[in-house]
Amino acid sequence: MAGDGSDQRALQYEQTLYGSYSEDFGKYTKEEAARLRESGQRRSVSRTLDPLEYDKGRCAKCRFCTVRCLKVLISFVGEDWIFLILLGLLMALVSWVMDFGINSCLYALMWIYNSLDSNVFLQYLAWVIYPVVLICFSAGFVQILAPPAAGSGIPEMKTILRGVVMKEYLTLKAFVAKIIGLTAALGSGMPLGKEGPFVHLGGLCAAVLMRFMSLFGEIYENESRYIEMLAAASAVGVGSCFAAPIGGVLFSIEITSQFFSVRTYWRGIFAATIGAFIFRVLAVWNTDAETVTALLRTSFRLDFPFGLQELPAFGALGIACGFGGALFVYLNGVIVRFIKKQKANNGFLMKRHLLYPALVTLLISTLTFPPGFGQFMAGKLNMMETMEALLDNRTWAKQGIAEEAEHMGHSEAWIIPQVNVFVTLGLFTFMKFWMSALATTMPVPYGSFMPVFVIGAGFGRLVGEGMATWFPDGIHTNGTSYPIVPGGYAAVGAAALSGAVSHSVSTAVIVFEMTGQITHILPIIIAVILANVVAQSLSPSLYDSLIKIKKLPYLPELGWGHHEKYDIHVEDMMERDVRYITLNCSYRDLHNVLLKGHLKTVALVESAESMILLGSIERAQLQELLSLQLGRPLRLVNIREGAVEDKKRLSVVSNDSSENSSHRASQEVRFQISTEDSSLSPTRPVPQKPLKPALKRSSVVEQPTGPHDHSGIAFKNLYGTIPDTEADLEHNVDVEDDMTIREITELEEKQLDDKVNFNNCKIDDATIQLVERMSLHKTHTIFSVLGLDHAYVTSIGRLVGVVSLKELHKTIEGSVKVEGAKVRPALASFRDKGKSSSENETIDVHKLRDRLRSMQLPRDHIPSE
Amino acid sequence: MAGDGSDQRALQYEQTLYGSYSEDFGKYTKEEAARLRESGQRRSVSRTLDPLEYDKGRCAKCRFCTVRCLKVLISFVGEDWIFLILLGLLMALVSWVMDFGINSCLYALMWIYNSLDSNVFLQYLAWVIYPVVLICFSAGFVQILAPPAAGSGIPEMKTILRGVVMKEYLTLKAFVAKIIGLTAALGSGMPLGKEGPFVHLGGLCAAVLMRFMSLFGEIYENESRYIEMLAAASAVGVGSCFAAPIGGVLFSIEITSQFFSVRTYWRGIFAATIGAFIFRVLAVWNTDAETVTALLRTSFRLDFPFGLQELPAFGALGIACGFGGALFVYLNGVIVRFIKKQKANNGFLMKRHLLYPALVTLLISTLTFPPGFGQFMAGKLNMMETMEALLDNRTWAKQGIAEEAEHMGHSEAWIIPQVNVFVTLGLFTFMKFWMSALATTMPVPYGSFMPVFVIGAGFGRLVGEGMATWFPDGIHTNGTSYPIVPGGYAAVGAAALSGAVSHSVSTAVIVFEMTGQITHILPIIIAVILANVVAQSLSPSLYDSLIKIKKLPYLPELGWGHHEKYDIHVEDMMERDVRYITLNCSYRDLHNVLLKGHLKTVALVESAESMILLGSIERAQLQELLSLQLGRPLRLVNIREGAVEDKKRLSVVSNDSSENSSHRASQEVRFQISTEDSSLSPTRPVPQKPLKPALKRSSVVEQPTGPHDHSGIAFKNLYGTIPDTEADLEHNVDVEDDMTIREITELEEKQLDDKVNFNNCKIDDATIQLVERMSLHKTHTIFSVLGLDHAYVTSIGRLVGVVSLKELHKTIEGSVKVEGAKVRPALASFRDKGKSSSENETIDVHKLRDRLRSMQLPRDHIPSE
Repeated sequence: MAGDGSDQRALQYEQTLYGSYSEDFGKYTKEEAARLRESGQRRSVSRTLDPLEYDKGRCAKCRFCTVRCLKVLISFVGEDWIFLILLGLLMALVSWVMDFGINSCLYALMWIYNSLDSNVFLQYLAWVIYPVVLICFSAGFVQILAPPAAGSGIPEMKTILRGVVMKEYLTLKAFVAKIIGLTAALGSGMPLGKEGPFVHLGGLCAAVLMRFMSLFGEIYENESRYIEMLAAASAVGVGSCFAAPIGGVLFSIEITSQFFSVRTYWRGIFAATIGAFIFRVLAVWNTDAETVTALLRTSFRLDFPFGLQELPAFGALGIACGFGGALFVYLNGVIVRFIKKQKANNGFLMKRHLLYPALVTLLISTLTFPPGFGQFMAGKLNMMETMEALLDNRTWAKQGIAEEAEHMGHSEAWIIPQVNVFVTLGLFTFMKFWMSALATTMPVPYGSFMPVFVIGAGFGRLVGEGMATWFPDGIHTNGTSYPIVPGGYAAVGAAALSGAVSHSVSTAVIVFEMTGQITHILPIIIAVILANVVAQSLSPSLYDSLIKIKKLPYLPELGWGHHEKYDIHVEDMMERDVRYITLNCSYRDLHNVLLKGHLKTVALVESAESMILLGSIERAQLQELLSLQLGRPLRLVNIREGAVEDKKRLSVVSNDSSENSSHRASQEVRFQISTEDSSLSPTRPVPQKPLKPALKRSSVVEQPTGPHDHSGIAFKNLYGTIPDTEADLEHNVDVEDDMTIREITELEEKQLDDKVNFNNCKIDDATIQLVERMSLHKTHTIFSVLGLDHAYVTSIGRLVGVVSLKELHKTIEGSVKVEGAKVRPALASFRDKGKSSSENETIDVHKLRDRLRSMQLPRDHIPSE
Repeated sequence: MAGDGSDQRALQYEQTLYGSYSEDFGKYTKEEAARLRESGQRRSVSRTLDPLEYDKGRCAKCRFCTVRCLKVLISFVGEDWIFLILLGLLMALVSWVMDFGINSCLYALMWIYNSLDSNVFLQYLAWVIYPVVLICFSAGFVQILAPPAAGSGIPEMKTILRGVVMKEYLTLKAFVAKIIGLTAALGSGMPLGKEGPFVHLGGLCAAVLMRFMSLFGEIYENESRYIEMLAAASAVGVGSCFAAPIGGVLFSIEITSQFFSVRTYWRGIFAATIGAFIFRVLAVWNTDAETVTALLRTSFRLDFPFGLQELPAFGALGIACGFGGALFVYLNGVIVRFIKKQKANNGFLMKRHLLYPALVTLLISTLTFPPGFGQFMAGKLNMMETMEALLDNRTWAKQGIAEEAEHMGHSEAWIIPQVNVFVTLGLFTFMKFWMSALATTMPVPYGSFMPVFVIGAGFGRLVGEGMATWFPDGIHTNGTSYPIVPGGYAAVGAAALSGAVSHSVSTAVIVFEMTGQITHILPIIIAVILANVVAQSLSPSLYDSLIKIKKLPYLPELGWGHHEKYDIHVEDMMERDVRYITLNCSYRDLHNVLLKGHLKTVALVESAESMILLGSIERAQLQELLSLQLGRPLRLVNIREGAVEDKKRLSVVSNDSSENSSHRASQEVRFQISTEDSSLSPTRPVPQKPLKPALKRSSVVEQPTGPHDHSGIAFKNLYGTIPDTEADLEHNVDVEDDMTIREITELEEKQLDDKVNFNNCKIDDATIQLVERMSLHKTHTIFSVLGLDHAYVTSIGRLVGVVSLKELHKTIEGSVKVEGAKVRPALASFRDKGKSSSENETIDVHKLRDRLRSMQLPRDHIPSE
């Protein structure tokens, strides 16, 4: 996306202005039909030439056999089930192999570190260089193979699940890069987690698997199904990462969706269970565990897990975690923004790509060096060891000073002779806090969930030890006294802080499943809710914050709590100044509309008097129409020049996009974005000729490198035949190429007065129309469920306005601000006005027409008449 | 609903034919606006005259004070939060009080039974008469106060949450009837549960609370919010019933929704946590429990809960439970259908309302009489005691014969000297199975979840004891041997069977939360998934089965597994033969359309040539238009006759419906049903005069007793003034009442040729339009999210078809059947046809018009021309 340093408002404007992510599925189908006719039997061959580049020739026989077997199996079981089982298996394997790799890396580091214990300096060098090398490898590898694989991937998955097409995020390359990069990054021992990348990996795995399975029959073509499967896949990711099927499903739902179907939930549970099961069974076979149990098994008291008197402490812990979560998101956002600015300004840090991650790693590993400062913050332990220690059943504060700590396993790390356990825990929490916020800005695959989880556990443990010290006798009930369990506080803190950062309550379920105990359900869920309440009122979630920073298209969530929002209707937020063209307009009108408007689509109405909405046409389509009408001679020259190279590209790219667009059979207003890193964006290409200044402006972002195939087809359709591209072009060129520029200009001027022929224009049925009295909630629901980008507002068939994501952003975020200040909602006056006018509810159909004519839209938008 | 004995197909036809649940919210708003203008300042008074009949006068001062306080509080915290907190509190209180009442009833029965132990006959009498009296009281009380309170209420809640308005199910009366009836029914000791009614109670409580809170400001007017709150409320119901907040939310989501928003999930978790917390805290204060722990706390081994070798047994248990669940649903359905038939035929059993429940209770209590047959099936224990015993940690099969059973608490009930524990468990499972299926057909408030849960636990225990006998040494791993825990099997069986019956996987979470242990997560979730797979492929869920039997409007779920369904598009299922009228049609055309068509709504197009869809008009509206034009003299006579009584009713009913319709501000095609039991249905009234035979037919179901207010308003609008109803009518009557019948007929014939004046007609903007290439999945999503009843299919603004619930039913259920038979999908041929025609994708806008004209719809539907 353009404009790194600009703010959100400017972005929205840009998006609308340049329409860089405008894409429509209905159109795709239509185009594909045309292209299919053209490509004919070439198609069956081209199917295998998809971006994953399967080697078709080599395994032809083997494939034939597999196809038969699979088809029998599929017809018997149903492909959804097979797909989900395969997905679960694959993700479990990936998770397990990755864990194996990470543990090997960590073990190697500890081995080197321990074998160098004669020389502290050498130890330090090993401790520092090892992670730096791994992180640099990870960053470099990802950068070379697939830059989209860097980062957590949750913001992108959220955007994709909203219906935005971001192809480069779901490729086999990204899959490989993510796995290897993540293994290296986590093997370095930095405070990074694997949960975010696993959401992305789930999606990647599903996309790759769907590609693979589509080799065995055309069964994966439905777009809603594709999205549903991706949603299920992200659940599998979390599930197989934490061996927490239910929590994984709920967590992935909460962080990626605003609406979801019970069907998806079901699919997720099914696949995540298989994933979690296999993941744990692999551990059993590898004799890491005796049987299938929880990942971080705890053994809290069952009979009296906590006293009612402790609940206020749990609540306070939750609230504190809420503030902490908001702070973490803020801190992370500040660093990410700073980095982006540096990158944009080509600052010192960004000059060499690997310098920043190397410096960050150096800083963090220096501070955690066990003989150095690391001894005060359990620097020796890796993430899982830390969690095990923090969830420990014993009370550290009571253990006196380190005497009995010998046989306490990992807990020793906190109980050092010189300092109080509160100091070590406090230092641990504080240091890990900023370290994690810093580490999760490196250009490597990373997750923020696990570091936050550990910080939360540390903070909870701190509070728990405090409570144990404060009430050394524990809780008295019915004569018995039960000591306080600081490990329970650690579990509460972990759930609350991770919930606050991710704005989800299902972290509670993840904690139950990870620890294998549900005894603390009430304190955990209360703390998580309180943390969420605080964090949600202070900041967006970490993922939404990144979405905003990365400028991905998103629909803000509707908060809840105040009723003002229930009083906002479409009429309050719609843009009344709609660009439209009429069915009988001339090319000059078309030209004027394109000159004035900046929207991605233009509404098509029957006539300026009736204003009956027929559909919408994309800007690119109209430009094509115009250029076909006007610029044919010039255009032909252009085309002749470009034809030879383009034709070669065409044969690859058109097959490619015909393959992909088959997923998008439905006919909604959807959109596609291309990120700054994307190299190939096979989206709607437009004619190359810069027609007029205004058009030039928009052509900046309209992929000037795109292939000519679409216009070529429209062109051919115009002539009613399907001739060979090049020959046909040359024929036309021969006929008309002898005109002078002046003649052309004159001709153009005359041609501009012709009526537009929409015959070959792809008109989008604007199927989802809003009405003025529709509430914000319903509008939000429609936008989020159907993944809309904009929708027209009609009144008895007549176009009266348009609502796009921009208006929704403004309304939702604007009204939130207003609420904070406790004044009358900004839209209230508008609202009242609307009320008074809407009192006259019985609509006079015939009069309406006159009224619309009299209250006419501004002159410059009326093309015909 | 009409026609008890008829089948599903016939019902659908009827619904479409008579439109008995056709209602539109947009219209409501418009009518209300008109009515508000009329009622003027009376409104502020009338607000309190809603069906809850708050005593306005008495507490005026106190109310003023409360309003101020509440408003300050609300502005500070936000009303959603307050509402949810109140809801949670209230439901917890209700649940606790009800438990107290139920336990008292059960205790009283046991006390009577024990104190009569000298005489077995007296004991039997007490054992039998006590429940019969309670059940009869429950049935009678509910029948008198609020018949909709009978049954579980989940089918109705599911229908309501789909957007169907069923007012009589959400009244204060039903709330009271449900609480008292349920307490009496459960106090009788019959195999009934409280979970289903609690879903309904949650909804009732939310509805009542919203009414109550709306006294303090007009803040509860948004319909989506209303539905969202009801969804959250049903979660609270389950949550506070089982003290299982997370499981409650997930369960209520799974059984009531097909789509839901994360916002709702959030709300549900929040309120359910409060509910569950308060519910358990009340228990602590009442010293039932030491601290807040699980309801049915278990103490399974933590270190080695189960061996991997046991997983096949768990899987088999799940599959068996799946078959059992399907059988239960089938059995229950057969009995319910039989009862309905009996009722329809006024059979012997139904002659006296209370005879059937009394007979059923007599039969069941006779069989469970502890000294009689009951001793072989633990007849003495109530539901909670049974569950506690079944989840017991010991192995009964090993206890030898009853010697050591003395100190085993409730488990003794199964270990009797004469018979093997397998026999008692088997008998228990079998007897409870049919008893529960029978008991859950009585006309009392009941839940089927808990009985099924208990049966599942019994069956699981049976399997577990079998495993323990089969492998007396348990599982050997690493030298240690762990005995098999039959209690774990009981937990698995309970979750699996209840999951199979309700078609949900979240019963697993409920089990975790109820038992306070998550150690068996893997076997439970695997068994639940397998049970669901089996049950879902065999039968609908219990609730869907009841929905079908009760003939509530529903949208079948899209199954998953086979790809044929992904290949169905709107064009395959739409009804191409759409009734429409044009903007310029004459009254005769209108008349013809009404005469021929049976649909609830008629499409309004611009003209028969253009076929541009403008919106739709309800049948009743058109009839009103016609009667205003034609039958005015006759109509006036009618009105004069009815005016005096109606006016009285009007003052109450119109306030009532103005109150209610304020919830329905949005403008969708929604619908309202009135069930056979509803006494007052203030829905759209229509003119009374039976115009022509065809109209007479439809007027059968159009509430001939409804008030005249709506037509009155339209009438008044026609005259441009807002006069007093009666005076105005009489004035008109004086003017025109001197015509003869022949004159009227002649005038009517002439009037029929007039152009229709749509000025006062409420036109519904058909905002959601489908396109022919939209997939079944997307259509299903749109219908389920927006709660649609029908949607028009357009192609570039032109009406080409209509899809209603009927078509969706046919498509989804039709294709399911086809899949079962493994033949080509029924719609495939259609599909191919569609494909071949849709190949010509680039649409010629101008030609389209001509094509439409030439492929004209059948003659009788073309009113104008």
